[in-house]
Amino acid sequence: MATKLWEKSTQVNARIEAFTVGRDREMDVFLAKYDVLGSMAHIRMLESVGLLQADELKSLLDELKNIYKLAETGAFVIEAGVEDVHSQVELILTRKLGDVGKKIHSGRSRNDQVLLDLKLFARAEIQKTVSSVSDLFEVLISQSNRYKDVLLPGYTHLQVAMPSSFGLWFGAYAESLADDLQLLLSAWKITNRNPLGSAAGYGSSFPLNRQLTTDLLGFDSMNFNVVYAQMGRGKMERTVANALASVAATIAKLAFDACMFTSQNFGFISLPDEFTTGSSIMPHKKNPDVFELTRAKCNKLQSLPQQIMMITNNLPSGYFRDLQIIKEIFVPAFAELTDCIEMTTMMMSEVKVNTEILDDTRYDYLFSVEEVNRLTLSGMPFRDAYKQVGLKIEEGNFHPNKSINHTHQGSIGNLFNDEISNYKNSILSEFCFEKVKDAERNLLL
Amino acid sequence: MATKLWEKSTQVNARIEAFTVGRDREMDVFLAKYDVLGSMAHIRMLESVGLLQADELKSLLDELKNIYKLAETGAFVIEAGVEDVHSQVELILTRKLGDVGKKIHSGRSRNDQVLLDLKLFARAEIQKTVSSVSDLFEVLISQSNRYKDVLLPGYTHLQVAMPSSFGLWFGAYAESLADDLQLLLSAWKITNRNPLGSAAGYGSSFPLNRQLTTDLLGFDSMNFNVVYAQMGRGKMERTVANALASVAATIAKLAFDACMFTSQNFGFISLPDEFTTGSSIMPHKKNPDVFELTRAKCNKLQSLPQQIMMITNNLPSGYFRDLQIIKEIFVPAFAELTDCIEMTTMMMSEVKVNTEILDDTRYDYLFSVEEVNRLTLSGMPFRDAYKQVGLKIEEGNFHPNKSINHTHQGSIGNLFNDEISNYKNSILSEFCFEKVKDAERNLLL
Amino acid sequence: MATKLWEKSTQVNARIEAFTVGRDREMDVFLAKYDVLGSMAHIRMLESVGLLQADELKSLLDELKNIYKLAETGAFVIEAGVEDVHSQVELILTRKLGDVGKKIHSGRSRNDQVLLDLKLFARAEIQKTVSSVSDLFEVLISQSNRYKDVLLPGYTHLQVAMPSSFGLWFGAYAESLADDLQLLLSAWKITNRNPLGSAAGYGSSFPLNRQLTTDLLGFDSMNFNVVYAQMGRGKMERTVANALASVAATIAKLAFDACMFTSQNFGFISLPDEFTTGSSIMPHKKNPDVFELTRAKCNKLQSLPQQIMMITNNLPSGYFRDLQIIKEIFVPAFAELTDCIEMTTMMMSEVKVNTEILDDTRYDYLFSVEEVNRLTLSGMPFRDAYKQVGLKIEEGNFHPNKSINHTHQGSIGNLFNDEISNYKNSILSEFCFEKVKDAERNLLL
Amino acid sequence: MATKLWEKSTQVNARIEAFTVGRDREMDVFLAKYDVLGSMAHIRMLESVGLLQADELKSLLDELKNIYKLAETGAFVIEAGVEDVHSQVELILTRKLGDVGKKIHSGRSRNDQVLLDLKLFARAEIQKTVSSVSDLFEVLISQSNRYKDVLLPGYTHLQVAMPSSFGLWFGAYAESLADDLQLLLSAWKITNRNPLGSAAGYGSSFPLNRQLTTDLLGFDSMNFNVVYAQMGRGKMERTVANALASVAATIAKLAFDACMFTSQNFGFISLPDEFTTGSSIMPHKKNPDVFELTRAKCNKLQSLPQQIMMITNNLPSGYFRDLQIIKEIFVPAFAELTDCIEMTTMMMSEVKVNTEILDDTRYDYLFSVEEVNRLTLSGMPFRDAYKQVGLKIEEGNFHPNKSINHTHQGSIGNLFNDEISNYKNSILSEFCFEKVKDAERNLLL
Repeated sequence: MATKLWEKSTQVNARIEAFTVGRDREMDVFLAKYDVLGSMAHIRMLESVGLLQADELKSLLDELKNIYKLAETGAFVIEAGVEDVHSQVELILTRKLGDVGKKIHSGRSRNDQVLLDLKLFARAEIQKTVSSVSDLFEVLISQSNRYKDVLLPGYTHLQVAMPSSFGLWFGAYAESLADDLQLLLSAWKITNRNPLGSAAGYGSSFPLNRQLTTDLLGFDSMNFNVVYAQMGRGKMERTVANALASVAATIAKLAFDACMFTSQNFGFISLPDEFTTGSSIMPHKKNPDVFELTRAKCNKLQSLPQQIMMITNNLPSGYFRDLQIIKEIFVPAFAELTDCIEMTTMMMSEVKVNTEILDDTRYDYLFSVEEVNRLTLSGMPFRDAYKQVGLKIEEGNFHPNKSINHTHQGSIGNLFNDEISNYKNSILSEFCFEKVKDAERNLLL
Repeated sequence: MATKLWEKSTQVNARIEAFTVGRDREMDVFLAKYDVLGSMAHIRMLESVGLLQADELKSLLDELKNIYKLAETGAFVIEAGVEDVHSQVELILTRKLGDVGKKIHSGRSRNDQVLLDLKLFARAEIQKTVSSVSDLFEVLISQSNRYKDVLLPGYTHLQVAMPSSFGLWFGAYAESLADDLQLLLSAWKITNRNPLGSAAGYGSSFPLNRQLTTDLLGFDSMNFNVVYAQMGRGKMERTVANALASVAATIAKLAFDACMFTSQNFGFISLPDEFTTGSSIMPHKKNPDVFELTRAKCNKLQSLPQQIMMITNNLPSGYFRDLQIIKEIFVPAFAELTDCIEMTTMMMSEVKVNTEILDDTRYDYLFSVEEVNRLTLSGMPFRDAYKQVGLKIEEGNFHPNKSINHTHQGSIGNLFNDEISNYKNSILSEFCFEKVKDAERNLLL
Repeated sequence: MATKLWEKSTQVNARIEAFTVGRDREMDVFLAKYDVLGSMAHIRMLESVGLLQADELKSLLDELKNIYKLAETGAFVIEAGVEDVHSQVELILTRKLGDVGKKIHSGRSRNDQVLLDLKLFARAEIQKTVSSVSDLFEVLISQSNRYKDVLLPGYTHLQVAMPSSFGLWFGAYAESLADDLQLLLSAWKITNRNPLGSAAGYGSSFPLNRQLTTDLLGFDSMNFNVVYAQMGRGKMERTVANALASVAATIAKLAFDACMFTSQNFGFISLPDEFTTGSSIMPHKKNPDVFELTRAKCNKLQSLPQQIMMITNNLPSGYFRDLQIIKEIFVPAFAELTDCIEMTTMMMSEVKVNTEILDDTRYDYLFSVEEVNRLTLSGMPFRDAYKQVGLKIEEGNFHPNKSINHTHQGSIGNLFNDEISNYKNSILSEFCFEKVKDAERNLLL
Repeated sequence: MATKLWEKSTQVNARIEAFTVGRDREMDVFLAKYDVLGSMAHIRMLESVGLLQADELKSLLDELKNIYKLAETGAFVIEAGVEDVHSQVELILTRKLGDVGKKIHSGRSRNDQVLLDLKLFARAEIQKTVSSVSDLFEVLISQSNRYKDVLLPGYTHLQVAMPSSFGLWFGAYAESLADDLQLLLSAWKITNRNPLGSAAGYGSSFPLNRQLTTDLLGFDSMNFNVVYAQMGRGKMERTVANALASVAATIAKLAFDACMFTSQNFGFISLPDEFTTGSSIMPHKKNPDVFELTRAKCNKLQSLPQQIMMITNNLPSGYFRDLQIIKEIFVPAFAELTDCIEMTTMMMSEVKVNTEILDDTRYDYLFSVEEVNRLTLSGMPFRDAYKQVGLKIEEGNFHPNKSINHTHQGSIGNLFNDEISNYKNSILSEFCFEKVKDAERNLLL
């Protein structure tokens, strides 16, 4: 039974085998669709350079499409005793087609095969992440516009400072997500280059046509140097993880604000009852667990790049089995982040805003700067105005004028949400999702 | 159906519920045994202070013992719709015993209950870890003694430096594990203090006897201050994780050496064929994947404290749901580390040592310091001897005398392995495993 | 000019030299005292095994004592062109004593010399850290006792939960520091073992007496295995850094609470005006910058172990120059932490406590659990009592009875501060500061 | 003496002041040039909206140009007792010009001022980093072309695997740097947006024209939302730090290879003697310390993002003094990385390559895949060819044919270095360095 691609005449110790396979079977199921796509591109190329017959190609492509459908519907299974997705696909092919099934591996190593699978997987997952980030962005902009006139205390040092607004608060997180998209874009660009053909990291003596597989798979270009293609393992994951971490940092900060704002000591926002949880001993509690868990999961995700670094750091160039362990922390990260983004989108849609916050006198000093500015605009040097108002406050004689008149770009009275949306859209337009989609569709025709 | 302990009259949104429960059911299965033990101690105490009748106590204890057996045999299951281990246990009890089942929660919150479960779990897992560390220690000392006369090049800057030996190499890692035990010991001491009675982090108005549960559960003492008891959540996990990380660092370093030493460029050690794996394209390969995977897993484990820090950092005092997320990274860490330790123990037992390494002339300069020392011992100032030998080497006239005569404590000729073992044993003797075992046995009588 | 101990006949490129020396001169000044102490022990041992004459020893010891005094008064300088502290000391000796000055290096390498210096330095700095931790501990316990009757809202999920007190709050951080001392103790134990005699990591052919230097320097024992002694470089620093990080985590959490409690939204504590700072545009601000900076510095310190790990991870055994870089992040960490501890001690002594917090009706629900417990103690099953009070709250009919009666160990009415102090003292007693002090005093006689 | 911009009537405690100022004076010297540039743009805008007279503007601009020149020549000093760069600049202006000097602060807070300074500083430093990365890139491509025919063993698992070449090795690191530029580009884009006008994070009631300062300072656009502008503090630094870390990871990996390749066990490359260092006890040593220190410094730099995360994580929105601490780890990072890049450039220019490596028989198995492929190209199924060659090797009958014929894109025979250069140049062209330079030049006219 040829279930390990590299089998020698000596059998491997069973416990070693269990240890080395680890969670690969579990992770590889996520890669199955992409493994099939990669093989389809690879064998088309093999046929074009004469390493496969046209009829062999046809029967292999037909069978690979069947496997792709299995993977799409969740019916693809890596059988017990089969080491990984690559072996399983080859096994299915040889069962159906005999020896020709083995030919899909010509001119490849598992090293460039898994590199390719991971890149195709990451590419698809980045696209999903961008999509859920966009959804949250839209909800935030919409809430910013809706509540643009509801004031909120602005804090510095968590001390009451100057007037802010829900328009600013929601909008700030939307703009933060837009900047995060810059990192997803650079991660996408680094990911979207073809490693296929690098074999075990030193290329091949087969007359491969790497440009052809690059085009067939819709890549921007290839990882040119084959040693670098291999060196990209771990680096790609770290780069993508950093982009995910940046989104996670934005969500975690929003969740921190939300947790704090739902405290009785703030009371700025609240969630509908069905979105809160209770306590086993305190009957009055309505806890914002959903924000806390979002925060914690996003904070955990922010250490993913560090985990990857610890695994890859101080390894010389060339493949090491160490890199396999990255899969089990990298692959699940996308779903976890997307889950957090979607929960946040739902909460931000449902959150109830307190419109009477500034009626509380504890927020009166918010307006001290307005008074300083009023004096300054009437001709007094800023430093003197600052001192005059400061002394009034120390004496207890400060009485706020709560009308505010912020007009400049990005301020309470002029949120510039359209410009933020334009900025976001300009970044989105640099992803070439359509090109990728077309390529994958053509491969499956 | 009372499956959530805190149920209010409003139903929680289903998606929120799924998100907030998360992987708790999966993790809580590991805590089941300890949850039952904790409840047994708690209700004995409740009875002693008059909050439970003697007959109620008896029937509850009997049923809890049954649940404990389920947990021990792996038959304990958290049913769909039941939130966590605490709810499941209470559900089983009320099914069997009616309303009296609900009484086990008096004077507790889920906060101190899960704190307790985690500490009892960590205590048991630390003990297992210490045991597998000891096993590896013994193998390393044994191999050190066995190969004490086989020389090895010693490197500094990865440059051939001075003679070393397999005796030194194996023994060094044994001693490193002994120091790691110091960290496991401090983690044990911080863990082995009773948080029960802290309730939600602010204590209780019930007349609890915390000393009694401390004694019943075999703790060293209690976390006295109830606010601190709650503050220990996350801190205990971080402290234990740091100790695990220290063991992991030792193993990872050993694995790095082993990977390097099996390279054809060193050829110092080798593994039996059945412990190596091959390549899908290179028929000559016998790869030491087991060392690489051990290294990678241990390197990943070393970032566990950082993950915990990212979750807990900058949270004020008091319970937050964020802390729940720590469970899913903390609970599996023990098994992963133990697996790595056991694989290393197996490999270190089976590793084959090359006894002819120093015959290769590339290692001749290893003996230059011996020559310097010989000149120094014969009266030449060290600096002058150093220069004389250095000039000979630059001129190509250095011919090594390969006899070595290292006699001081801890050197090639005097490994001091007994002292290393004594040091290890002195640390081991500070763990009070017996006391814990006795307490748990008595509880289950 | 013999300013580099390893000088060959070829001169090193000037830019390379500047790059490789780096910040060593700056860091080595901190090590000077310890380098001299180490040399004094080393040469006493050399004389005892016949590698130095009695008169040579005497003149060297006399001169070393002079250098020690220079170092103590801050007058020790590493001259331009001199590579490190070891070279500078040898240079001073040879200027004064001629060739005999060179003899102090016999039987040593710079590797074990710097290992020793770092351990003696860390040992002294751990002692200072323990001392400032103790001072803060005492202030916290004293404030806990002083304010034991002042109530504070207890939060879970940052939602008003149950009554707490300043007694609990101050005391919790004191107990947290006590647990941190456990980690400082294990760091001390790992540090306090003698690496001298390991030379470049492979021992020496000189008949060194390592037990003698171990005793002279007041070490617990030696790092027996010489390869392990070298392996301890980086590991010792990481272990100590983890202990510092644990103290830092406690301080940072306290600082977070303090920042939050000084916010107008809490108003639980305040600082005297002269301990706050203002804003350049908001005249009303009194910002608790000192807590924020303490928090930030302590949070930064918490990533020190990770920095060390990144430097040392995946290096094989044996010395690498990489380890030098650890000095520049490790050496300054102690002063930074101590500064934070001392500022916290000062703030905790001066902090003003609001004694009327619970008069605010927003905190009424703090007492709901008391009501549940009252019903339970009068015979109602806990779950039913919980439901009854919960329904009252939902209907708006809950009226708190603010008398509380917490009596168990570690609760509001029974803080157990003496037990916490006893726990701390029992840990303190395991450090052998006196033995170390005696040894160092004897060396300098 | 008006040396603190926010001075109230109460004096701040001296020790608190020292603690809160910390290393700001030291760091702010690096920001001085940028602080002046920012003020020049700000006051031009103030004059344009009528908040400053034309003659006031002129005298202020003249004086600011003088201060800029001081900063450029290193003569700018922050005087004792002056808190930061902003205060120092204002102090110089008021000394020269009287009260008009105070007017430069109108419509600003120190919060947006330091945000601006940090962005202008980071922008300039990113440009320098890109420039030194480009220099290293060119050297690597040039060496790749020069040594394209010199073979090198390619390793997987550090086991001899397949033929590689110095052409591939040098080129791989060049291409890695090109991908790193993608991250520097996204960092640049996130940095190059104007925060000025956000004041303390909540905007201003002055009629500021933020578009004008955006244009005057050559920014791509502004951070629109003022709350987000403030939220960018820490996030910008983290993003830039991640890009630096990616470059650092490439350099560290190259340094690891170089250290390993200079070991006697490899002997693939060597450095001229004047670039190596010696040992204080081993006269034969020529250690590649420069690579080790480069590696360690770059590894340390890779934990910079984590340090920043630890400081900023779980802080709610709004300014906190914590953010100040980031300066002291962020500001020096650029010079440290550039130093490492420049040393690497120098070493890579001077490195000597061993052209006879593959003459050693230990590398014979490198050619086993070539043999497999030869059989495959002659019609044998790949799996069968693999088995046949594998069996020959096990029997000891494998004799290599050392001619290799790799022709595909990115392989030994077809390095595709021009395409790698084109890829790099296409990224470089997206930085708008010229626009920035023009804007800064115009400001200083």
